[in-house]
Amino acid sequence: RVNGDRLWDTLMDMAKIGPGIAGGNNRQTLTDSDAEGRSLFKTWCENAGMTLGVDKMGTMFAIRPGTDPDALPVYVGSHLDTQPTGGKYDGVLGVLGALEVVRTMNDLGIKTKHPIVVTNWTNEEGARFAPAMLASGVFAGVHTLEYAYDRKDPEGKTFGDELKRIGWVGDEEVGARKMHAYFEYHIEQGPILEVENKQIGVVTHCQGLWWLEFTLTGREAHTGSTPMNMRVNAGLAMSRIIEMVQTVAMENQPGAVGGVGQVFFTPNSRNVLPGKVVFTVDIRSPDQAKLDSMRARIEAEAPAICEALGVGCAVEAIGHFAPVTFDPTLVSRVRNAAERLGYSHMNLISGAGHDACWAAKVAPTTMVMCPCVGGLSHNEAEDISKEWATAGADVLFHAVVETAEI
Amino acid sequence: RVNGDRLWDTLMDMAKIGPGIAGGNNRQTLTDSDAEGRSLFKTWCENAGMTLGVDKMGTMFAIRPGTDPDALPVYVGSHLDTQPTGGKYDGVLGVLGALEVVRTMNDLGIKTKHPIVVTNWTNEEGARFAPAMLASGVFAGVHTLEYAYDRKDPEGKTFGDELKRIGWVGDEEVGARKMHAYFEYHIEQGPILEVENKQIGVVTHCQGLWWLEFTLTGREAHTGSTPMNMRVNAGLAMSRIIEMVQTVAMENQPGAVGGVGQVFFTPNSRNVLPGKVVFTVDIRSPDQAKLDSMRARIEAEAPAICEALGVGCAVEAIGHFAPVTFDPTLVSRVRNAAERLGYSHMNLISGAGHDACWAAKVAPTTMVMCPCVGGLSHNEAEDISKEWATAGADVLFHAVVETAEI
Ligand SMILES: NC(=O)NCCC(=O)O
Ligand SMILES: NC(=O)NCCC(=O)O
Repeated sequence: RVNGDRLWDTLMDMAKIGPGIAGGNNRQTLTDSDAEGRSLFKTWCENAGMTLGVDKMGTMFAIRPGTDPDALPVYVGSHLDTQPTGGKYDGVLGVLGALEVVRTMNDLGIKTKHPIVVTNWTNEEGARFAPAMLASGVFAGVHTLEYAYDRKDPEGKTFGDELKRIGWVGDEEVGARKMHAYFEYHIEQGPILEVENKQIGVVTHCQGLWWLEFTLTGREAHTGSTPMNMRVNAGLAMSRIIEMVQTVAMENQPGAVGGVGQVFFTPNSRNVLPGKVVFTVDIRSPDQAKLDSMRARIEAEAPAICEALGVGCAVEAIGHFAPVTFDPTLVSRVRNAAERLGYSHMNLISGAGHDACWAAKVAPTTMVMCPCVGGLSHNEAEDISKEWATAGADVLFHAVVETAEI
Repeated sequence: RVNGDRLWDTLMDMAKIGPGIAGGNNRQTLTDSDAEGRSLFKTWCENAGMTLGVDKMGTMFAIRPGTDPDALPVYVGSHLDTQPTGGKYDGVLGVLGALEVVRTMNDLGIKTKHPIVVTNWTNEEGARFAPAMLASGVFAGVHTLEYAYDRKDPEGKTFGDELKRIGWVGDEEVGARKMHAYFEYHIEQGPILEVENKQIGVVTHCQGLWWLEFTLTGREAHTGSTPMNMRVNAGLAMSRIIEMVQTVAMENQPGAVGGVGQVFFTPNSRNVLPGKVVFTVDIRSPDQAKLDSMRARIEAEAPAICEALGVGCAVEAIGHFAPVTFDPTLVSRVRNAAERLGYSHMNLISGAGHDACWAAKVAPTTMVMCPCVGGLSHNEAEDISKEWATAGADVLFHAVVETAEI
């Protein structure tokens, strides 16, 4: 069993870096706070006897050697970056849980055939630079390095420049490492485990996603002196598209979600009808056909909504991952570990995307989940108990050790 | 007649300060560009033989003395501040048109009984600091100086601090000046004069306004892992309120407008349902009863929309002016001047609010309007012709001289 107190203290120490405004964290990728978090994590890894490799995306790989020089490593990790108003556990639990696995192996003097690599993927959240899971996407060959470096934050700064600025451009080619397996431990970020009163989510699949970025072109005009029949109102068109996305998601229940989290009005002045409205629709489903049909319907209905108002409508798919089926052998290993340790468990489909979704393209992969209070995540009030955190780390430890072979 | 070429050159010189991104201007109130524009205007006024007074709101009063030491001045002005993506004429034409009136009086050696005061009101637009027409509102006793100084821009800077920063806090008590009359020359900012093919708008009324700022409280949550039935979606509630405002405005035709120009999502991240949405509804009508019933209906329906989604709904009226009837004597003077000069004209109700609306509380007031291309304003593409600008200035000149008495 892992040391739950130590894991918890480590989580709390990391949470001191990049504090939020309401008890959570704002440690967005490639900010000064991210750099500070990376340094602390590096120190912890070195103190646990690991050596650090860094790739050109800034992803950190802390290596605990195995006994067989030819055996590929078992990778275990997640991400230390957060949303602008993020919680203390989303991603962080997976990285520090992996560190706890190694610390526990050290405590117990466990040697494995396969090396263990504790991994911190860069820019999982995609909050600052879309798309999400950017570094693992380059690692898996889904994006090129150039594409990633060119991503811009809302202020126009590029990923490449910011990575250089914080001093974390590594020398390893991205994706050069070969994996025996990849494990990721994460909070559920949804309500199911808590409602079902289960300690462990055995993650069998991850739902797929499309991010559709709409750019609507209206006509900037005075809100007072422009008669209703002369308006080209891009904000009204956006409102109708948000309502339509809601309808599409509801008509695809169960097994679908859709919504809008980000909106920019230009010029965003109280007495000016917006000339430009940019917003991103986020739709997801575990069912590829459903996901694609939702996208097709939204892309068919939105232009009609806009046309009726004279508004220009452009749409670009700026993020995508297909639904993933995790490796059945690793999934069983997680389930068996939970069973053996006496933790209640159930199968789960991940509602959020994870670096594991990209890792699954290049290695046998699976995930372990623990509950979070009220299913709340991407919220500073995100919360878990020490017992939940510990149970998941125990399961991770057993599944990883079994895969890395004593 | 005024010197149209000189007026036009002066307009073009001012437009060089605080250039926009698409041929217009971004010279928002109390920015460095505003300060630069003020200095240039001051120089012009001094070169025209006027002396400058400045009040504690930073409003500039350039005085051309009259022949009777006891006669109250005739004020003629508008504003030099612009929207973030504003045009070159909105407000500016009224200030520089007033300057052209004085320059023409100088050319012709005209002396008047009443002094003439060319006026540049601070923060007419309200784009940076709500509400609009702030300095004239304090002047007319509608707001206190403290209220005005405490207004905050989106970055949290206060009006008072920014006025001090740019060095334009004057020593005059706001509203201490007494007015014989107030004239304001402005582009229509709407389509009517152009459609009706008239050179001059004789402004008889100004419609009233309410700015209703909504703060909707949802629950920040992950867009992927939060099931549809567990969402507290403030963005969806906003969309429904925008649609409802549209319906209310359409059902009050003719003589009503309503819309939303400004929206803020928090945290505004693609994969986070917004925890907070703030936006401002702008409704207007020349008919007080209609205006108030629209407000009442919006404030009754919005909470019901929100409640159905579990979203919290707070609304604050952050801007208001009642419909205004301008002074019949001055209105006739404007009409007669247009007639005498041979300019086509028609009566007009101002769709936008103007400093004249507040001045009307403390002095006989009216406005002169000229057409603008396509009715477009609050848009960098705002445009007028030199001939239109000149015709309006001619009418202003005649009405002002008649009121100031030779
Ligand atoms: N786990 C997580 O929040 N990932 C961000 C990508 C997504 O939106 O699913
Ligand atoms: N003229 C003008 O655009 N004034 C700003 C106040 C308003 O929104 O009417």
